[in-house]
Amino acid sequence: MSDFTPVSGFDLPRYAGIPTFMRLPLVPLDDPRLNAVQIGLIGVPWDGGTTNRPGTRHGPRALRDASTMMRAQNGSTRLRPFEMVNCADLGDVPPNPASLENSMARITEFYGQVVKAGIRPLTAGGDHLSSLPILRAVAGEPLGFIQFDSHTDLFDSYFDGQRYTHGTPFRRAVEEELLDPKKMVQIGIRGTMYDTEDRDFAKAVGIRIIEIGEFFARGVPDVMAEAREILGTGPSYVSYDIDFIDPAFAPGTGTPEVGGPNTCQALEVVRALSGVNIIGADMVEVSPPFDLGGLTALAGVSVMFELLCVMAEAVRSGA
Amino acid sequence: MSDFTPVSGFDLPRYAGIPTFMRLPLVPLDDPRLNAVQIGLIGVPWDGGTTNRPGTRHGPRALRDASTMMRAQNGSTRLRPFEMVNCADLGDVPPNPASLENSMARITEFYGQVVKAGIRPLTAGGDHLSSLPILRAVAGEPLGFIQFDSHTDLFDSYFDGQRYTHGTPFRRAVEEELLDPKKMVQIGIRGTMYDTEDRDFAKAVGIRIIEIGEFFARGVPDVMAEAREILGTGPSYVSYDIDFIDPAFAPGTGTPEVGGPNTCQALEVVRALSGVNIIGADMVEVSPPFDLGGLTALAGVSVMFELLCVMAEAVRSGA
Amino acid sequence: MSDFTPVSGFDLPRYAGIPTFMRLPLVPLDDPRLNAVQIGLIGVPWDGGTTNRPGTRHGPRALRDASTMMRAQNGSTRLRPFEMVNCADLGDVPPNPASLENSMARITEFYGQVVKAGIRPLTAGGDHLSSLPILRAVAGEPLGFIQFDSHTDLFDSYFDGQRYTHGTPFRRAVEEELLDPKKMVQIGIRGTMYDTEDRDFAKAVGIRIIEIGEFFARGVPDVMAEAREILGTGPSYVSYDIDFIDPAFAPGTGTPEVGGPNTCQALEVVRALSGVNIIGADMVEVSPPFDLGGLTALAGVSVMFELLCVMAEAVRSGA
Amino acid sequence: MSDFTPVSGFDLPRYAGIPTFMRLPLVPLDDPRLNAVQIGLIGVPWDGGTTNRPGTRHGPRALRDASTMMRAQNGSTRLRPFEMVNCADLGDVPPNPASLENSMARITEFYGQVVKAGIRPLTAGGDHLSSLPILRAVAGEPLGFIQFDSHTDLFDSYFDGQRYTHGTPFRRAVEEELLDPKKMVQIGIRGTMYDTEDRDFAKAVGIRIIEIGEFFARGVPDVMAEAREILGTGPSYVSYDIDFIDPAFAPGTGTPEVGGPNTCQALEVVRALSGVNIIGADMVEVSPPFDLGGLTALAGVSVMFELLCVMAEAVRSGA
Amino acid sequence: MSDFTPVSGFDLPRYAGIPTFMRLPLVPLDDPRLNAVQIGLIGVPWDGGTTNRPGTRHGPRALRDASTMMRAQNGSTRLRPFEMVNCADLGDVPPNPASLENSMARITEFYGQVVKAGIRPLTAGGDHLSSLPILRAVAGEPLGFIQFDSHTDLFDSYFDGQRYTHGTPFRRAVEEELLDPKKMVQIGIRGTMYDTEDRDFAKAVGIRIIEIGEFFARGVPDVMAEAREILGTGPSYVSYDIDFIDPAFAPGTGTPEVGGPNTCQALEVVRALSGVNIIGADMVEVSPPFDLGGLTALAGVSVMFELLCVMAEAVRSGA
Amino acid sequence: MSDFTPVSGFDLPRYAGIPTFMRLPLVPLDDPRLNAVQIGLIGVPWDGGTTNRPGTRHGPRALRDASTMMRAQNGSTRLRPFEMVNCADLGDVPPNPASLENSMARITEFYGQVVKAGIRPLTAGGDHLSSLPILRAVAGEPLGFIQFDSHTDLFDSYFDGQRYTHGTPFRRAVEEELLDPKKMVQIGIRGTMYDTEDRDFAKAVGIRIIEIGEFFARGVPDVMAEAREILGTGPSYVSYDIDFIDPAFAPGTGTPEVGGPNTCQALEVVRALSGVNIIGADMVEVSPPFDLGGLTALAGVSVMFELLCVMAEAVRSGA
Repeated sequence: MSDFTPVSGFDLPRYAGIPTFMRLPLVPLDDPRLNAVQIGLIGVPWDGGTTNRPGTRHGPRALRDASTMMRAQNGSTRLRPFEMVNCADLGDVPPNPASLENSMARITEFYGQVVKAGIRPLTAGGDHLSSLPILRAVAGEPLGFIQFDSHTDLFDSYFDGQRYTHGTPFRRAVEEELLDPKKMVQIGIRGTMYDTEDRDFAKAVGIRIIEIGEFFARGVPDVMAEAREILGTGPSYVSYDIDFIDPAFAPGTGTPEVGGPNTCQALEVVRALSGVNIIGADMVEVSPPFDLGGLTALAGVSVMFELLCVMAEAVRSGA
Repeated sequence: MSDFTPVSGFDLPRYAGIPTFMRLPLVPLDDPRLNAVQIGLIGVPWDGGTTNRPGTRHGPRALRDASTMMRAQNGSTRLRPFEMVNCADLGDVPPNPASLENSMARITEFYGQVVKAGIRPLTAGGDHLSSLPILRAVAGEPLGFIQFDSHTDLFDSYFDGQRYTHGTPFRRAVEEELLDPKKMVQIGIRGTMYDTEDRDFAKAVGIRIIEIGEFFARGVPDVMAEAREILGTGPSYVSYDIDFIDPAFAPGTGTPEVGGPNTCQALEVVRALSGVNIIGADMVEVSPPFDLGGLTALAGVSVMFELLCVMAEAVRSGA
Repeated sequence: MSDFTPVSGFDLPRYAGIPTFMRLPLVPLDDPRLNAVQIGLIGVPWDGGTTNRPGTRHGPRALRDASTMMRAQNGSTRLRPFEMVNCADLGDVPPNPASLENSMARITEFYGQVVKAGIRPLTAGGDHLSSLPILRAVAGEPLGFIQFDSHTDLFDSYFDGQRYTHGTPFRRAVEEELLDPKKMVQIGIRGTMYDTEDRDFAKAVGIRIIEIGEFFARGVPDVMAEAREILGTGPSYVSYDIDFIDPAFAPGTGTPEVGGPNTCQALEVVRALSGVNIIGADMVEVSPPFDLGGLTALAGVSVMFELLCVMAEAVRSGA
Repeated sequence: MSDFTPVSGFDLPRYAGIPTFMRLPLVPLDDPRLNAVQIGLIGVPWDGGTTNRPGTRHGPRALRDASTMMRAQNGSTRLRPFEMVNCADLGDVPPNPASLENSMARITEFYGQVVKAGIRPLTAGGDHLSSLPILRAVAGEPLGFIQFDSHTDLFDSYFDGQRYTHGTPFRRAVEEELLDPKKMVQIGIRGTMYDTEDRDFAKAVGIRIIEIGEFFARGVPDVMAEAREILGTGPSYVSYDIDFIDPAFAPGTGTPEVGGPNTCQALEVVRALSGVNIIGADMVEVSPPFDLGGLTALAGVSVMFELLCVMAEAVRSGA
Repeated sequence: MSDFTPVSGFDLPRYAGIPTFMRLPLVPLDDPRLNAVQIGLIGVPWDGGTTNRPGTRHGPRALRDASTMMRAQNGSTRLRPFEMVNCADLGDVPPNPASLENSMARITEFYGQVVKAGIRPLTAGGDHLSSLPILRAVAGEPLGFIQFDSHTDLFDSYFDGQRYTHGTPFRRAVEEELLDPKKMVQIGIRGTMYDTEDRDFAKAVGIRIIEIGEFFARGVPDVMAEAREILGTGPSYVSYDIDFIDPAFAPGTGTPEVGGPNTCQALEVVRALSGVNIIGADMVEVSPPFDLGGLTALAGVSVMFELLCVMAEAVRSGA
Repeated sequence: MSDFTPVSGFDLPRYAGIPTFMRLPLVPLDDPRLNAVQIGLIGVPWDGGTTNRPGTRHGPRALRDASTMMRAQNGSTRLRPFEMVNCADLGDVPPNPASLENSMARITEFYGQVVKAGIRPLTAGGDHLSSLPILRAVAGEPLGFIQFDSHTDLFDSYFDGQRYTHGTPFRRAVEEELLDPKKMVQIGIRGTMYDTEDRDFAKAVGIRIIEIGEFFARGVPDVMAEAREILGTGPSYVSYDIDFIDPAFAPGTGTPEVGGPNTCQALEVVRALSGVNIIGADMVEVSPPFDLGGLTALAGVSVMFELLCVMAEAVRSGA
């Protein structure tokens, strides 16, 4: 058994043991095993960009706890990711809860080390602003980008000029040329709107938005075929906001919007990313204080397991 | 900006400020602005007709709280209701929790003033018996009527002769000629049955019942086309019992029945009322003490926002 | 009115009275009325075989409580089961929470008396290991068997040789020739996998597994037609693990797996068993300490009511 | 073992079996064993007099459930009440949730039969108005009366003339000469006040009110010595509102007031009633929908067990 | 009845109506009635300084909701504050959840207007850092200061130099000469400690710390006599952190410490401030997402009502 | 900084990082650092002996999570335990949830290694039966023993002969001469009783029981002086059942008994063990599925921190 094999529930009950992501070994950045890691699971316990209900700072711990329910093999694709690539829990980025700027710098610094070690990061947030400092570290060039979300997060500013919130990260990422808007697709957008500022921006720069009505009408396979087309063959990043999923299935989030996909669809869209060259991914906006019975954390780690599988495929394909 | 513009979440976070419906101005019945109001949002904090689990007396406050999550524009139809018509929160009817009869009289009296001011009411209940005293005030003639519900509420009496409960309001409304049974349709009926007394009555007077099996088999567009046909062009009232929605999506209600529609369908059926001359509507049976994490209140106000949009269209069409 | 008529909610509100199953009379094994009973509802308050989150020992009490929401008639099929056959609550098997072996013996002994009295048992568990000692009492010959579940429960052993857990009952039941593997079908299997040991065993002995992907792709009628075919006309047993249902609809269970059926489908699959000669059935793995607002108990008893209806048909058909 | 022996937790785990009060036999009013019963535990699932948060209609079921945690012997006094007198669960009064007047009549009628059978009732409410129709049945003469409560419930009327609510029962009981105001004592009164109307009435008729400040300053033994003095040797009734107890210990009630006694004191005051000729008692205002983890129900039944012990003493002393 | 009379629960049930603080009229800063207000209740929905569990941004709304349980008269002192002085709800300070600095500036600006209008503020926070920008507006001279808390909040910095967090406000306030350390007293301090940095600072500048052990040993009257001595006759500010109260009584806070006072003591300490010239007060660190059944909000508003009473006395005494 | 220094909340927020006990390093039994450890914190995630409500198998994880709230210094005694002795988290004993016997053997085996390495164990259970297999490993001679509990756990057997349950461990431990009954004291016993079997046994062998009434009457210092006298100077073991604490302060346990100590007293009793030669201690019966908002876990780790402090003193005193 390799150094990167998760503990099995046949040997140790799932509720026992210290909860690392997927029961993988904990490999901090200064651990000599770091260079052998291919996919690193990282927590970003931070909600400094949250304009509405807070609590995603508690996301990583709740997701680690729930992740002990994950087993070794994908029940749908039959992939065994932990045997395909070396995976490890790299721990949490140390945030500064009282400084948005300082926290963003800390995140970029941490991910800089991860990228330097040749590791593809799979992140457990944290609010959606977390994606921006991560992208600053991982985007060597403007990336392809797919976002599952009920909101576009493409606004310019809030509260009389606040440019960094969880409603603005991808506006900034486009402006900073971290993402290539022509290779961007956002899926699941829904709910009441302030106005059309975000949609106007998307249209102007070429971001493809697939709203929930179109998503349901066309179905997962058709929508995801288009999405893969948009992403192309270059390096891509996947950002998965838990509020993409209907709040009955994932209530623990700050800005829930009813009328969303169920968890079956929530997993299918990730499986459909098979073949995409994913160099990083995140699961954000899980807010445990608003969760009910751990439903959201379970949904979140179930999605993370699927993300891990498609990332493992990308690593193995030498992409 | 008019007197009837809601506070925006861009200016004041949604969790801040006193929670009126949709963050609209509060306009009590003695406020000079009353006559400018076209659609009035009203709370009926009363559960005196409840035969099962109580708590809908707390519905209006929970719905107001959740309604601060609503924004200015419909994400599906792109309507901006608050710019189309003057909307306001008219406050709560003062109930008498220890007297069913007195409470009903108070409700009819309050809505009489609302109707007299030329305002179309959008109500947040309250249990389903609330609809009866409201109808007594708004029904100048026998109205068309559409009900989303898992129960018919067409029984004659309970407990050895109790004729006014939340299981009997529309039997009474037909008897009192507030509703025209030939223009009545009930959608979503399901769950175990006592017997067929209610269905027999419906058949006898001509009420159309579309049970959940038929609803799922035919789909929303087809069912709602028939419903619009039944309602016709005359004045109609919409009564929306939250238990129409599956309890996984709306657990906070007194008599939940599994196997119901999801919130996507729950919103679609309301959008399909576009073109109907809605002179009043209600959202009833939200019971916060049985709610989970505010899911039900959020579903309830999301439906209310859709109701507001179709009511605004009706006002604007001069119907 | 017979001795076996449930109390009606028209006469006594549902929240009143001592909660027996479906508000039926309580008929302990030493009650002279026992021989008149045709279907007996029995609780097995035991979770000794649970390898993960516990609590199903509290299942029977929560299911009895929720069952007071059930009425007299099936809203879909219009059957009135309590008028078709004599039903009664036979009470709980007395378990020994500190001894797995002793508890299993007690269960088999109790059901031996039930079977001897000519009663078909409808059980409220309890964890899934409960089914094994029940089958030892009811299986006069190798039975047909249909299982609704997200797990196969076909593993050989856990924790270094533990052969009796809730992950192994049907491996044992096949080995003990209580079930005929050629007449076995498992529906809804999903979630991450340890490995393929269980699937390999199923294939080797001829058990048909219909995974969730196939279930959704083919739909309930087609899948259930195949299932009926497999079960054939001989005596069959139905085992319904509540984790078959998606955790948004039934969160109160020990090993939830996202991406499952909704409650509409959860009821439909049971109705599709009409015509099968069901000699016993169980609803297992409801864990009230992990439930949310009684959602799971309500889903569980709604399924039990459907099971009761198809069992009543089987009794009446003289099967 | 007599017919009136509770099931022991040594034989059947506490979570197993149908939950009757204290695991006693269920003896409905038409049961031939009725005449052998000396103390009857009765549920009044009704909250029709509630002016604030509802839910006490669910009190009896929650109290029965929690009562399965009670064992056979008092840990403080060492009394074994079930061996001293014949106790039984007499079931619930059938209420009419939609009619205050009809419910009150039903309660008085039920208790009339209980009294006629020579049984002393120990009631699980229900809101505090329940005590009035009970007193109408049990008070053959003006009774001594002790009330543990944070409110006096001595107001004249609410909501423009409503004379029967849970804030008025003892004003009515004095007016109807069911209680002798000179033999009345109320303990634990606290919280913000509307005005002094209730205190003025108490003073005028001679009711002794011991507010919480005095209660804490003097201590349980001294206060209770005075209380016993007031009650005297004649027949007395004990009314225990769960909101007497601090809401940290008993959160599940409609009108909680902080700053109250803990559960140690809550039990002690009852033990100090030893020697009083208690002919009836009630535990009211337990509202399960507002309870937290069953804390309130557990506190409520712990008090009921103490009440049962002092009532058993009264029966045995031939009082 | 004046313009500043709260709505009575005798007229409108407590659960009805829009929830302003204590059911007082809402008087925004631009309302002409502002100048008649003597005590203004203000919400600060902000938790930007929180280093641990968040959620106090939701405090004001939860406190307003619970405050509808408060009546007109103090049950202990018999004061009727709303008849003594003009009280009003001045609404919420609009925060910027994504900028600590901007939020602090907004708070100081808002309170500047309040002070200018001659109003004494009674604040519902928000985290404890909120007190600092409030003090900047209200402290015309170094104030006397009494703090009820389990933490001193006197640290210099966190996270490598972060000087503004909810653990540092009173260090800053002393440095900025908003408070006179010789007139400062902190009561209830407890829990595990990082080190003695805060205590060393307190000793150095003359702040009196009364730890929980001393508090319990001496009792409320003795401790509070010393506290009044320290505060003297000059203008004083009261800062009440809800975590002063034991978490069994007030669980909804970010950094709970077991072993604290109960709510009886929690109210008594405030009553003992009678005679102090209180020019402002706050109730902070109520975090509704971590609350249980509204217990903390109820405790918080009960304390606020007591604060209001002693502030009303101060206003009336012309202090 | 040593290898055994916990992470500070000044550097990393408490909600960040993988939760080990007290944020100490994780040192599994095969770690070379093991021999430097002096006090080992160990989880026993097992509830196989539970006769009532289950869930203590989840205790260790919840206690680890809550333990990240503990800081470096005792606020009362000013001790800094992590600087006094080398402490580490040794991980969890791997249980077999489906075999009581096998689990007991596994526990004894694990603690055998711990004792052999010269480490004093501080355990987080698990149900109270866990103490028995631990004592088998740590008791080289009959030990002194102090138990904080509401139950004696001295019964002989349950359910027709079941000798190993969480109600019997100390009966067995006396029989097996692991404990010296003359040096045993049990404090806090309360609640209703089955009978006097356990008390009779205690009296017969010389175990001192201090019931709750005596505990409150005499106070902590007096009671604990007697307790220290009983324990004497030899090696002693401390077993702390969380149900010693009143359920308002610690609701998350299987068999709560109202009327117990508050958390202030709960900590004081441990501090009073200063000077006792404690060679091992446990905190048992924390059941997270029944906890409310983590109150019980927080109380539990607060007690564990105090236990750690007195154990550190014992180590340092060379006892």
